[in-house]
Amino acid sequence: MLRPRSGAIAVEERLARSAAATEGADIKTSEMLDWLTERRKVCTAQIRQVPFTELHGWSFSPDTGNLSHRSGRFFSVEGLHVVRPSIEWQQPIIVQQDIAILGILAKEFDGVLHFLLQAKMEPGNPNLVQLSPTVQATHSNYTKVHGGTGVKYLEYFLDRDRDQVLTDVLQSEHGAWFYHKRNRNMIVEVHGDVPQDEDFRWFTLGQLGELLRHDNVVNMDARTVLASAPMTHPERTALSSDNDLLSWFTDQRAGQDIQARCIPLNQTQGWRRGTHSVHRPDDKFFRVVGVSIEAASNREVPSWTQPLLEPVAPGIVGFAYRTFDGVPHVLVHARVEGGFLDTAELGPTVQYVPANYMHLPAEQRPPFLGLMLNAAPERIRYEAVHSEEGGRFLYAESRYMIVETDESTTPTEAPAGYHWVTPGQLSWLAGHSRYVNVQARTLLAALNYAGI
Amino acid sequence: MLRPRSGAIAVEERLARSAAATEGADIKTSEMLDWLTERRKVCTAQIRQVPFTELHGWSFSPDTGNLSHRSGRFFSVEGLHVVRPSIEWQQPIIVQQDIAILGILAKEFDGVLHFLLQAKMEPGNPNLVQLSPTVQATHSNYTKVHGGTGVKYLEYFLDRDRDQVLTDVLQSEHGAWFYHKRNRNMIVEVHGDVPQDEDFRWFTLGQLGELLRHDNVVNMDARTVLASAPMTHPERTALSSDNDLLSWFTDQRAGQDIQARCIPLNQTQGWRRGTHSVHRPDDKFFRVVGVSIEAASNREVPSWTQPLLEPVAPGIVGFAYRTFDGVPHVLVHARVEGGFLDTAELGPTVQYVPANYMHLPAEQRPPFLGLMLNAAPERIRYEAVHSEEGGRFLYAESRYMIVETDESTTPTEAPAGYHWVTPGQLSWLAGHSRYVNVQARTLLAALNYAGI
Repeated sequence: MLRPRSGAIAVEERLARSAAATEGADIKTSEMLDWLTERRKVCTAQIRQVPFTELHGWSFSPDTGNLSHRSGRFFSVEGLHVVRPSIEWQQPIIVQQDIAILGILAKEFDGVLHFLLQAKMEPGNPNLVQLSPTVQATHSNYTKVHGGTGVKYLEYFLDRDRDQVLTDVLQSEHGAWFYHKRNRNMIVEVHGDVPQDEDFRWFTLGQLGELLRHDNVVNMDARTVLASAPMTHPERTALSSDNDLLSWFTDQRAGQDIQARCIPLNQTQGWRRGTHSVHRPDDKFFRVVGVSIEAASNREVPSWTQPLLEPVAPGIVGFAYRTFDGVPHVLVHARVEGGFLDTAELGPTVQYVPANYMHLPAEQRPPFLGLMLNAAPERIRYEAVHSEEGGRFLYAESRYMIVETDESTTPTEAPAGYHWVTPGQLSWLAGHSRYVNVQARTLLAALNYAGI
Repeated sequence: MLRPRSGAIAVEERLARSAAATEGADIKTSEMLDWLTERRKVCTAQIRQVPFTELHGWSFSPDTGNLSHRSGRFFSVEGLHVVRPSIEWQQPIIVQQDIAILGILAKEFDGVLHFLLQAKMEPGNPNLVQLSPTVQATHSNYTKVHGGTGVKYLEYFLDRDRDQVLTDVLQSEHGAWFYHKRNRNMIVEVHGDVPQDEDFRWFTLGQLGELLRHDNVVNMDARTVLASAPMTHPERTALSSDNDLLSWFTDQRAGQDIQARCIPLNQTQGWRRGTHSVHRPDDKFFRVVGVSIEAASNREVPSWTQPLLEPVAPGIVGFAYRTFDGVPHVLVHARVEGGFLDTAELGPTVQYVPANYMHLPAEQRPPFLGLMLNAAPERIRYEAVHSEEGGRFLYAESRYMIVETDESTTPTEAPAGYHWVTPGQLSWLAGHSRYVNVQARTLLAALNYAGI
């Protein structure tokens, strides 16, 4: 009746074996990109920006100015008022109560775990089609608010047996753009035959690690689910014990003074609503725009319209990386974001939009930003452009980097608000909610699978 | 430079040794209660209920009716509006942004960890003086908003070295009475001499376990800090693996549909403000009242007034307890409380105020309540009356119980919303924020130290 607390199956070992497998049983590694290119060719969707008046079912409330769907589902765009001791601001924010399932099916082929990913079109993807989890289903999706067909493979996640669940954790998303958003990150293993649709392929973690080295191939949802898996790391030592790390994090969280509350969008100071966008007169940060999607053959519904949040410039997201006595560490930053449910989470060393700072003298720019922008090529252990969730963000690209640094730029004694952690410690914390932010989880996926 | 991730010192083993120590180096076990009785005698505080007009510095806002202090600190009493699919209600709620430090100093005597507790007066304690953590300091305390003297021993928690921290985690408090409240639960070890004040004594965990068997001796703050320590449990097996348990919890949290937001107290339907209390006309649930405290010699300030929340009837809080193949388990309940930061936490099997249900036929009463109320004496493994935080709640007593049950009343296959977990699993989760609610943490302290 009883089972081992550590799991009936040694999940960590099986994940490590899959991460080491650079070839797979389904698609050849050398053909992965060609297959994706082909899926992009057959995707006939046309995306164009439209004025808000052309959004079907979406409107601004006469009272609050909030932008929402007449069904009351999907999401809304409201205002957020953030007050911190030294700064105060207002901004639009996406409010989405729904907890989506981001689920990846896993299955053993020839003794190696493979993961079923989908070539999926999202309107905000720079190249339309990227690899997404097997299932990416908001509650609206699976209760069929938009009258589409059912979500493929969803039943494996709704009617799973507990022995099949390898990962199941609520994870936060972008605190600068979402209010209190979290999604359910799941990996579920299947043992029997699984019918395979033409948009779906099984990959080993090693193959996915290879794909993570390419720009705009693995979408955000797939990256965060992969990062949430309990990956083994060999290190048993670190600059901080796990307990020290938790105490430092508690101290960071307890020390934050932040008040953030939703306000009506039409009372959001510094922002204006035009016919085609909600934006700032100085055009900083982002815009809220409307898009029309036509004839998307591989979506549940062929055509629709929706709002998207469009950042005005690309970001830089990076970890400083050092080894101490041979043990790799990355420098995390306790980041406060207005939309976080609980004040601060562990973010990358650098997570900024450089365009916001380049007019400033170097010493007034954010810490470590120059370290990423000016990194010598031989010190760049990882570099790829990834975009954020294409169902909510339009062309939200960031350059993700892992850069080797040294004592002169990133001292062993980290500055206030920063802490050195090992990839194993980061993986451990990513197994629980709201420790590791979504950008750091993308970098964690790279650390775990891309052979950094 | 590196240290073991699992900690430089085997904290778990040292805690277990202290838990096994039924005698201590400071106060004799047989004299603990006498000492507390004596501390109660020298406490000269007089508590009396006063009309709101006699509260100094506290007033109801003309706009919102919220009750708050003119300094803007301490806490306020506002309204809460909770909407769930089948039920909707409004109630007063305590809002306190401040994160307090609840800190216990630890020190080895004769190779055994001892913990420094304070005989402390709180106005809402039924017997005025209970054992509290070494330090119980809100941010208001240590920035001295109320003009009192400094908090004794606080410097050990503010200026600690990281090797000294045994426990440091933010824990939620009563979601039915507090809005998004959490406190910082800390245990910090000291190595040098510590000056010992007459209200303070060092106890082993075994001695504290003995005291937990007595009514109203160990206060809530001490109970939650003790429960947050990383106690070892021998079991390596359980009905669910740790991963299954996390997945079940994620499912419970993801499945909740709850909207809770603060509203003005004067718009809180069903509640009335009188001269002496904010209450319901049917006098259900609780009242908000004012108290005056005079000549309390062992507090930072000798006299003060403040509001307190006074429940109208005592509660029953209990775990159903079974062993499966020799391994102890308790039945946790995924409880939704309106003031939780994140929808649901793991609570006891039973956490109710029986007076609210006794007019109903048995089959309409909450599940498992009868199991606690009618437990045969020989099946009661633990039973004690404890009160909740006496600085916020007036005489908020509950009978805490751990009751042995069987398949006929509490089946192996737990009903929806309930789950069997081992004490080790509960301790593991209590090492992170917001998994285990404050009532379950009191029972966990009993499981860990009271020789259940």
